[in-house]
Amino acid sequence: MIKTYISENESRMLDELFSLIRIPSISAQPEHHDDMLACAERWRQLLLEAGADEAMVMPSQGNPMVFAQKNVNPEAPTILIYAHYDVMPAEPLELWKSAPFEPEVRDGHIWARGADDDKGQSFIQVKAFEYLVKNNLLTHNVKFIFEGEEEIGSPSLEAFCKDHRELLKADIILVSDTSMLGADLPSLTTGLRGLAYWEIEVTGPNRDLHSGHFGGAVANPINVLCQMMSRIVDADGRITVPGFYDDVEEVPQAERDMIAHIPFDEEKYKAAIGVRELFGEKGYSTLERNSCRPSFDICGIWGGYTGEGSKTVLPSKAYAKVSCRLVPHQDHHKISQLFADYIQSIAPATVQVKVTPMHGGQGYVCPISLPAYQAAEKGFEKAFGKKPLAVRRGGSIPIISTFEQVLGIKTVLMGFGLESNAIHSPNENIPLDIIRKGIEAVVEFHLNFH
Amino acid sequence: MIKTYISENESRMLDELFSLIRIPSISAQPEHHDDMLACAERWRQLLLEAGADEAMVMPSQGNPMVFAQKNVNPEAPTILIYAHYDVMPAEPLELWKSAPFEPEVRDGHIWARGADDDKGQSFIQVKAFEYLVKNNLLTHNVKFIFEGEEEIGSPSLEAFCKDHRELLKADIILVSDTSMLGADLPSLTTGLRGLAYWEIEVTGPNRDLHSGHFGGAVANPINVLCQMMSRIVDADGRITVPGFYDDVEEVPQAERDMIAHIPFDEEKYKAAIGVRELFGEKGYSTLERNSCRPSFDICGIWGGYTGEGSKTVLPSKAYAKVSCRLVPHQDHHKISQLFADYIQSIAPATVQVKVTPMHGGQGYVCPISLPAYQAAEKGFEKAFGKKPLAVRRGGSIPIISTFEQVLGIKTVLMGFGLESNAIHSPNENIPLDIIRKGIEAVVEFHLNFH
Repeated sequence: MIKTYISENESRMLDELFSLIRIPSISAQPEHHDDMLACAERWRQLLLEAGADEAMVMPSQGNPMVFAQKNVNPEAPTILIYAHYDVMPAEPLELWKSAPFEPEVRDGHIWARGADDDKGQSFIQVKAFEYLVKNNLLTHNVKFIFEGEEEIGSPSLEAFCKDHRELLKADIILVSDTSMLGADLPSLTTGLRGLAYWEIEVTGPNRDLHSGHFGGAVANPINVLCQMMSRIVDADGRITVPGFYDDVEEVPQAERDMIAHIPFDEEKYKAAIGVRELFGEKGYSTLERNSCRPSFDICGIWGGYTGEGSKTVLPSKAYAKVSCRLVPHQDHHKISQLFADYIQSIAPATVQVKVTPMHGGQGYVCPISLPAYQAAEKGFEKAFGKKPLAVRRGGSIPIISTFEQVLGIKTVLMGFGLESNAIHSPNENIPLDIIRKGIEAVVEFHLNFH
Repeated sequence: MIKTYISENESRMLDELFSLIRIPSISAQPEHHDDMLACAERWRQLLLEAGADEAMVMPSQGNPMVFAQKNVNPEAPTILIYAHYDVMPAEPLELWKSAPFEPEVRDGHIWARGADDDKGQSFIQVKAFEYLVKNNLLTHNVKFIFEGEEEIGSPSLEAFCKDHRELLKADIILVSDTSMLGADLPSLTTGLRGLAYWEIEVTGPNRDLHSGHFGGAVANPINVLCQMMSRIVDADGRITVPGFYDDVEEVPQAERDMIAHIPFDEEKYKAAIGVRELFGEKGYSTLERNSCRPSFDICGIWGGYTGEGSKTVLPSKAYAKVSCRLVPHQDHHKISQLFADYIQSIAPATVQVKVTPMHGGQGYVCPISLPAYQAAEKGFEKAFGKKPLAVRRGGSIPIISTFEQVLGIKTVLMGFGLESNAIHSPNENIPLDIIRKGIEAVVEFHLNFH
């Protein structure tokens, strides 16, 4: 049924998608201000044509939001579909094989900026919605919220959510803006890490000293900084900050089993980044360590003489920028304080230490027991012929935690991207077949969501 | 006797010293090339007038050397007096109360560049020599070697020594180019520290990685560098490099007792550099730690993101410039190798570590049992009314170890400087009384040297 619908309508559908892609809605470049408005308006039209009861372009503190909804049954649950209509800049232009804003189909792929991220992926959501509406198969309510500032950090989204809690009220949020492990390895992202970031300043003597006259008698702030930094992760790869693991989510065994089944060649992984050995928390696999366990990294360090040659000095100050990737249930505000307290507790009386929290974000987890998650699983299985793997990602998508904190709604990350789609890079693309299977998967999601 | 000689000849002597000072022999400034030659020639004349059998200006790879000698008895020992006729630049000129190269006597001090370092101090040596020759009191042989590049690191001295071993042959070297603890606290410098310096490069992954995607699974080279740097000095302030202390000179108890009697206010010392607590090797006093015990300092460290704000990154590389101050008998070549071996031994397999030795210098000790040292002690006692304290200095004077290594001769550092003499700074000066007492001390040295 859906397959037939797609093939019968594919030509029109591609025209619609191309009309979106042709608008260079680059949020980072102010000269594209009018394109942002044009793209929002184009989406409004397409959402109405797809079957929304109403669709509107709404002001925000920045680029406008597109909101649409289809109310089927006030007793039924509501799904809120989030996407973004802005795209990354296309530079360097000379590396593109075809013009970034003139979509071209070659070798079964659409080549253009936004072909995947996120015009292509959000189009999948809208076309599945269209099919369900036109065939009277929709049994629950659907809302859409498309923003125009995702690629610049969603500066207006949190305030918009706070101002429109009622309008955005829903039971679950659905987002198509992430990737799968592969076209033959469908997967769903079930977790993201949070972040806490600090700058540390260690002050020893009140001026740089002659290391011949003072060395051995006065604590060197770089020596001290290294000592302190060496006491944050132990030999087993565990973070030693007291209380750090108190709220850490224990990943369910079912999910760990699933992670264990992700095809992963550690030798290839090491070779790709050029290291002989990996290092991480004892008792966890590499894929667990970089996705669902916390980590501590010194992102930057500096102090003393860093020029050419060899100047002796016992410097006055030393600095480090450090971060922790956090996991679900760890509150970055709490961790930020625990970390600062710990650093002060290990600072020797020979120096003064200042710890400045720089920023933070909460982690996110989508329980695989969630009905919406299981519906998504069925969708992927139908379209790709395999049950998708539940995958944690080590990075952060701040908007997902914003939704959870501000709206109190869980998100299912139903992303169809592939690494080879080259998002944010020249020659971004998406296979036509992924669009077809994506629509099929989302239709199946809706049919299985109760 | 000597007091009378000085007062009868003081006017002439000052004229002679002023004639040297008026020549701006600034080795760092190429436009003073002719002044270097003029100053060397002036010294040659003055050395002849003082009683040398012969005096000559000799070419070197750089500015010429002045050599002079007085042979009294081929059976008697020979003293080689080293000094330098070059001076530091006088800038900033606006801070001088009188012109730097027009010596002025005010408040009992001579004010001029070079008044102390080293024209004033070397003049003391030459005038003591003059007195002894004129009064037939010299019973041993005396040689003089004055260089014109000390303030720019003595680049030609080592080669000159190697080329003129026979000419410079002596039993002891005497140098007046250091300071005393105070005019009422005469002291002799008996030790200088050596130095070894390395650059350390730690390479982790072959490129900077996303700390969200890799953090927790891949060793961060800054984390590793800090870990390694934290393992070089233990909690007792001892350097943990195996074999590091094997050759360390144990300072004789008599000398430690003397150090313990040096007036030293630890509270004032801490307040001056703005630290609440000091840190150093257990079992040694602050003055011992910064002069006759080795030390380890990280002189510089850098890696990752060091700009404004908070960028997350798991960097590819981290660097440190580190140094050890060494003490007498520690060979800097041997220590350099021991250190590099130790660093490699504690480098985890997760990274690659490169240790590059940058430079080094040997420490120096003048045993207080040396007859020449004891003669110097008697000289100070006669002139200043107190037995001088034996003092170690934490810095390095490379020429002293050069003499020991190339010529195989020990040096006695018979310096008459005071901290208030402001060498290398505007308003350099020397009290006339120090010149008088200095001459008296050197005369007494010669009378007691056998």
